[in-house]
Amino acid sequence: MLLQASIDWNLRVHVLDADAEAPCRHLCTQFTQGSLTDYDTVYQFGQAVDVLTIEIERVNVEALEALEREGKRVFPQPSVIRIIQDKRLQKQFYRDHNLPTADFILTDTRADVALVEIQQPDFLPAFHKLGRDGYDGRGVQRIASVADVGKAFDAPGVLEKAVDFEKELAVIVARNERGEIQTFPTVEMVFHPDLNLVEYLFAPAEISEAIDLQAQDIARRTTEAFGIVGLLAVELFLDKQGNVLINEVAPRPHNSGHHTMRANVTSQFEQHWRAILNYPLGDTTAYQPAAMVNLLGEENQTGPAVYEGLENLLAMPGVFPFFYGKAITKPFRKMGHVTVMDQSLDTLREKVSDVRQGIRVIST
Amino acid sequence: MLLQASIDWNLRVHVLDADAEAPCRHLCTQFTQGSLTDYDTVYQFGQAVDVLTIEIERVNVEALEALEREGKRVFPQPSVIRIIQDKRLQKQFYRDHNLPTADFILTDTRADVALVEIQQPDFLPAFHKLGRDGYDGRGVQRIASVADVGKAFDAPGVLEKAVDFEKELAVIVARNERGEIQTFPTVEMVFHPDLNLVEYLFAPAEISEAIDLQAQDIARRTTEAFGIVGLLAVELFLDKQGNVLINEVAPRPHNSGHHTMRANVTSQFEQHWRAILNYPLGDTTAYQPAAMVNLLGEENQTGPAVYEGLENLLAMPGVFPFFYGKAITKPFRKMGHVTVMDQSLDTLREKVSDVRQGIRVIST
Repeated sequence: MLLQASIDWNLRVHVLDADAEAPCRHLCTQFTQGSLTDYDTVYQFGQAVDVLTIEIERVNVEALEALEREGKRVFPQPSVIRIIQDKRLQKQFYRDHNLPTADFILTDTRADVALVEIQQPDFLPAFHKLGRDGYDGRGVQRIASVADVGKAFDAPGVLEKAVDFEKELAVIVARNERGEIQTFPTVEMVFHPDLNLVEYLFAPAEISEAIDLQAQDIARRTTEAFGIVGLLAVELFLDKQGNVLINEVAPRPHNSGHHTMRANVTSQFEQHWRAILNYPLGDTTAYQPAAMVNLLGEENQTGPAVYEGLENLLAMPGVFPFFYGKAITKPFRKMGHVTVMDQSLDTLREKVSDVRQGIRVIST
Repeated sequence: MLLQASIDWNLRVHVLDADAEAPCRHLCTQFTQGSLTDYDTVYQFGQAVDVLTIEIERVNVEALEALEREGKRVFPQPSVIRIIQDKRLQKQFYRDHNLPTADFILTDTRADVALVEIQQPDFLPAFHKLGRDGYDGRGVQRIASVADVGKAFDAPGVLEKAVDFEKELAVIVARNERGEIQTFPTVEMVFHPDLNLVEYLFAPAEISEAIDLQAQDIARRTTEAFGIVGLLAVELFLDKQGNVLINEVAPRPHNSGHHTMRANVTSQFEQHWRAILNYPLGDTTAYQPAAMVNLLGEENQTGPAVYEGLENLLAMPGVFPFFYGKAITKPFRKMGHVTVMDQSLDTLREKVSDVRQGIRVIST
C-alpha cells in the first residue's frame, strides 16, 4: 500500500524483504531478497538508496545507525526504532516524558514476576510482555493470579497493570523533518477476543469531544517526545474512568490507518512519503465515516489462499476490498482488509456486519 | 493507473508494451516488450492470459479476433475496437444507430474534399480527419475554405462539419458482460486552443439538468449500441443551440476520467476491471467537485524530465499530482496530471489557476 502511494509521484522504490516471493516484488523498481535483521544485508542495501524507511520495526538497528552516521537519511530514526523495539524501553520512555500509560514493573526473569504476585497482589491482573520480538499477540501473557506465573516469560520483560478499558483508540500522527505535525482523526479498534488482533475499526471513534481532544493531544505529545520523522501510530486505552492511556506505538504505517486509503483526503501511506521526504504534510480530513474489517485466514485452513465472496463485496456500495497477495493462508493470518464507507453510522455498521459475513479467506 | 487499481484485488497483470523501459514495467506481474500492432506478438501474448484488455486502441485487431474465436475473453471486443479505430466506420455507426453527431461526408482522396468545397460550400468550415491512426490532434485538419484544401489528407478520411460549440463534454460509461451499465457524472473539458489536447476539465460540468440528462442518455445509448464490455469514454459537443452531439469515443480508461481516482467512490480504472471481469459495477458518485489539469511538457524542452514545483502542489490542500514516470519530456507531451478537489467551485477554480502556475515539466 506504501508502494501504491509511491507510484503517483513516480518515486523509485527499492525493497528489501526476506521472502523471495513477497507480493511487493512485482510492484517496486528493484527488489532484494534478504534478512531485515542481518547487519550486512541491511547495511549494504542502505548504501544504494537516498532515503531509507521501514514497514516493520524488527530490523537491524545497528546497521541503520551505521548508515545514519555516514550521512544517510534514515526515517524513522534508528534511535526511535531502538526504543520502540523494546517494550521495556518504550514504557520507561513514557514514564520519563510524563506521558500517561498503565503502571508497570520491569522484570528480568520469571522469578521477578512471581515476586510481584507475592509482594503486590493488587498489581494483578496484569499483562506480562516480552521486552523484544513480540508481535501481533505473540509475546504477551495475562497474569491474573499466582496460578498464571508459569506463563510469564523467563526473559527480560515488563509487567503491565491491566487496564479495565472502555474502548481501544488509535491516532496516527505524521511529523516531517521541519517539525510539522499532522494527526489523523481518532479511530476506535475492536480486537478479536482471544487473538490480540484488530478485527475491525470505526473512524471516527464514538467518543466525546473532550476524550477526543485528550487522545489527539497525547498522540501529538508522544510524537514530539520521540521527535520521529515519519508516521507514529499511537494505540490508546480509554479506561472506565475516562482516562486516556498510551498502550503502545508503531513507527510506521499501521493497521489502524488502512481505511485512510479511501476515506481521507490524504492516506497514511501518502502521508508517510510526505513526512520522510520532508514535503508539506497532507490534509487528513475524512470524506465520510468509515470502518475497516481485517480479513483473517479462516480457522483450520492452511494452504493456497482463495478469497471466497469477492463478488458479494463488490455488489455493496462504498465497500473496498484490499487483498495483500500472500500466496498461503493460515488460521488468523492477516490476508487483507475491507474498507467500508457511509454517510450514516447505522448503515455503516450494517455494512460491516454484511462484509464480515460475506467473505472468507480459505485454502484451495 | 489501471495497474494501481489492480493491486487492491491482487490481480496478476501481464503487460505488453513497445517500450522496453515503459514506466509500467516495474508495476506488473510480467512484462513483455513488443509491438501492439504486430499480429504474432499480440496473438502469442494473448495466449498466456485469461482476459485480454487494452489501454490504447491502436492494436492489431486481427490478432484479437483470432484469440476471441479461440474462446479467449477479449474486452473491449475486437469488433468494437475495429469500428472505433476507423473514424469513418465510427461516424457511420452513429448515423446507422440514430445517435446524434455532426454531419459528415466520407472522402477517399484529397480531390473528394475539393469537390465538397465546390459543390457544398455551406458544409465548410469542416474538419478533415484521417480514417485511421489519428491521435491526440494528429490526423485532423481544419478546412475553412478552398485555400485549405491542400491540407486535407489524400487518404480515406471523413469531412466533418465544424460544430460551433459552447462546451465540450464527456461521459465515461461502463458495461459488464451481464449488460449492467453505469455512467460517471458528466464532465466539461477545456482544450488547448491550438493542440487539440485537453488542458483541464471540471467535474461536474456546469450545464443545466436538461443538458446533463441529454448527455448521459446519449452516452448510455451509444454504449448499448456498441454492446461494449469495458469502459466507453464518450466525448460530446454542446452546440450553441443546446444540442448534444457525439464527437468521438474511446473504448478504454480516458483522460476525461483521471480525476475519478480521487474524486469518485469508484475510479474509472477500478470500474474497468469490474466491467471486464464481469463483477458488479461500482458506485460512481463524486465526493466533491473536482478538476483535472494535464501536465504537458514545456515548449522548447526536450530531454530527461524534471517536475519543477512538486512542493508547491503538495502544500495545497486537496491537490493530488500524478506523474507518469516517462523518462523524457517533449513539448506538450502528457507527462502527468493533477487532480484538484474542493467543496466550493470558486475555490476549485482558484486552485486550478494556482496549479497551472505552480508546476512545470522541464528537461534537465
